[in-house]
Amino acid sequence: MTKGKTGNSKFLKAYNETYILNLIRVNKSLSRADISKATGLSPTAAGGIVSSLIEKGYLCENGTGESKGGRRPVMLELKKNSRYSIGLDVDVDSVTFILMDIKGRVVFEWSSALVDNRPAAVASLAAEEIERVLSDCRIHKDKLLGIGISVPGMVDAETRRVVLAPNLSWEDADFGRMLREKIELPVYIENEAMASAICENWIGACKSVDNFICVNIKSGIGAGIFTGGRPYRGTGGSAGEVGHIVVDENGLACGCGNHGCLETIVSTGRIVEKAEKLIKKGLKSQLNEIENVSKVRLSNIVDAARSGNQAAGGLLEEAAGYLGIALSYLVNTLNPSKIVLGKDFVVYGDLVMDTLRRVVDRKALKRPAANVEIAVSEIGERSSTLGAAIIPLKILFGS
Amino acid sequence: MTKGKTGNSKFLKAYNETYILNLIRVNKSLSRADISKATGLSPTAAGGIVSSLIEKGYLCENGTGESKGGRRPVMLELKKNSRYSIGLDVDVDSVTFILMDIKGRVVFEWSSALVDNRPAAVASLAAEEIERVLSDCRIHKDKLLGIGISVPGMVDAETRRVVLAPNLSWEDADFGRMLREKIELPVYIENEAMASAICENWIGACKSVDNFICVNIKSGIGAGIFTGGRPYRGTGGSAGEVGHIVVDENGLACGCGNHGCLETIVSTGRIVEKAEKLIKKGLKSQLNEIENVSKVRLSNIVDAARSGNQAAGGLLEEAAGYLGIALSYLVNTLNPSKIVLGKDFVVYGDLVMDTLRRVVDRKALKRPAANVEIAVSEIGERSSTLGAAIIPLKILFGS
Repeated sequence: MTKGKTGNSKFLKAYNETYILNLIRVNKSLSRADISKATGLSPTAAGGIVSSLIEKGYLCENGTGESKGGRRPVMLELKKNSRYSIGLDVDVDSVTFILMDIKGRVVFEWSSALVDNRPAAVASLAAEEIERVLSDCRIHKDKLLGIGISVPGMVDAETRRVVLAPNLSWEDADFGRMLREKIELPVYIENEAMASAICENWIGACKSVDNFICVNIKSGIGAGIFTGGRPYRGTGGSAGEVGHIVVDENGLACGCGNHGCLETIVSTGRIVEKAEKLIKKGLKSQLNEIENVSKVRLSNIVDAARSGNQAAGGLLEEAAGYLGIALSYLVNTLNPSKIVLGKDFVVYGDLVMDTLRRVVDRKALKRPAANVEIAVSEIGERSSTLGAAIIPLKILFGS
Repeated sequence: MTKGKTGNSKFLKAYNETYILNLIRVNKSLSRADISKATGLSPTAAGGIVSSLIEKGYLCENGTGESKGGRRPVMLELKKNSRYSIGLDVDVDSVTFILMDIKGRVVFEWSSALVDNRPAAVASLAAEEIERVLSDCRIHKDKLLGIGISVPGMVDAETRRVVLAPNLSWEDADFGRMLREKIELPVYIENEAMASAICENWIGACKSVDNFICVNIKSGIGAGIFTGGRPYRGTGGSAGEVGHIVVDENGLACGCGNHGCLETIVSTGRIVEKAEKLIKKGLKSQLNEIENVSKVRLSNIVDAARSGNQAAGGLLEEAAGYLGIALSYLVNTLNPSKIVLGKDFVVYGDLVMDTLRRVVDRKALKRPAANVEIAVSEIGERSSTLGAAIIPLKILFGS
């Protein structure tokens, strides 16, 4: 772990402030002496930085700790209402928001339906929603560290433009800039699966995991990859596009030009379509639990599977089997410690995890298969919104 | 770029020594003033470190540079015969060695046939060969920084044992320790494809490339992956096992339990087998150039293809097509800047590159496909031996 650095440059001061702020975040409560000890900085130097952080409003003193021989030390912690962050997740027909405080706690959470999901319209709506909630919560804009955005598409590594978000029909959209101009705050845009991975790494199942992959399964399928403890976005920012691994050469044509891509079989839309087809074919006995709903939803299929309906269960098992094939390639290629499956998969993961695991163990090489834990995200649907809100905090804490 | 650091601890001294040594390696020749300027260290501090490096025998003064107003400065460079490194590459029936000097130049290069390729026997042979060549070249063992080893198998990330090298029939072999005990020098063991990637990154096509993949194609197929400018070995050390991506669901059974793995179609052995079958079937007109050789080799097929034999060309094209499918998954998943294809592929890469590129462009997503340059290694067969020799140098230069 990097420690405090001595010196008098502006850079070193900023470095030490960030370092100490993160130290307090991780340890929740520390005395000045603890900080001096942990950083290797002199008590005077450490004290100076603490004073500066208190002055800037990030830290506060809160009670006294246990004495180690002398006076009981004054304890320092992150100041509850000092700073906030907002994360928003853009989906096809809605935007989900999370307002988070400096301690990483969710203060408020809401979503807003999208009538028009073109970039400019979404940016206007997001800006309005954020202003409204800040006002309702009586939080001054100055206290907002920034806005993190999660989008279901490729984000250019350099320009941070949304290169392509097929389900939103966005192409080369500078959504980040649009929102920045309206809200006049720092804005950070991220691919949805990477936002989920950031969330799992900060507060979820991958806190101290260096090499892991979050695979989000919903209308599309994408992965957020961490290598060596850091987000790996690839050269252009499009790493993790695993939805187009071919898992059935004789499968349906995909928009990408291939046949039998993972997405054409395992996406939620495709599972629902298959259920609808079964119903249309009049297989009432097979899917009788859901034949009467006007529009089949994933939840109907999952409910039916849970009540023992074999056709419904079979649809989910089949999807898990194909997902297992794609995961086996990721296991062989990246040898991760963990794969976390999120979004819609969370709803039915427990039903099919055995099948999925069996396929990975059979298809991947023995050794990397033995290395990898495969789990359903415990955070669920919110992972990308939470991850988006975490981005400005990560920058503040330099971690 | 990190610069020189002020301070007086042992750690800082070692850091600055390594930093300055690498600065001189990269720039070939520098004056003390250049070093002071580049590191931000005072002339006295920089001079002290230079003196220490001269004393240790790494550096020497060599002539004077151009005057910038005063006396002509004395130039410093790496001392030619001061230190050496050895790389060795273990293959099924031979070991290849490279003796490299501190400047990265190949001093001597040789190979030795293996009668017995069990780990202990290979370690004995390697130790004898190294001692013999050092003696022949009149190099004292003290001048050897260490031995880098490249093996065609998985190397455990922590213990550095060879977990599995199928073509050598090695399983859980502590080859590094065996050689270390015999040679009494630092020994570093690495997967063959990663050794090639280290070579391409140090002296080859990927010198300043952060995200790239070296795919070695011979009896097996493996990849060395760099992410963010560093080797990515995965959690257990087995990342890059791309030979078992299924590219033909109806293909032959593979030892891994799948059907139609990349290795079962594109490995050199498999291409040769297919040629042999064509000949056995009496397709003389198709492969007449090679029907008379007693044992078909890849070179026969490539020669035939070069002289316009369509059947031979077709075999190589077919292999390239399947390779393209696997590469398209790597392109989508890792979005690298470069893919360098090495080992046997070097012999025929130019003949099939158009096909390969076309398949990748068709199968991978447009954007990451446009990001990636696919090239045949210009270093060729020696990349892994060179990479192995580079490992001890990388440690010396801290880069």
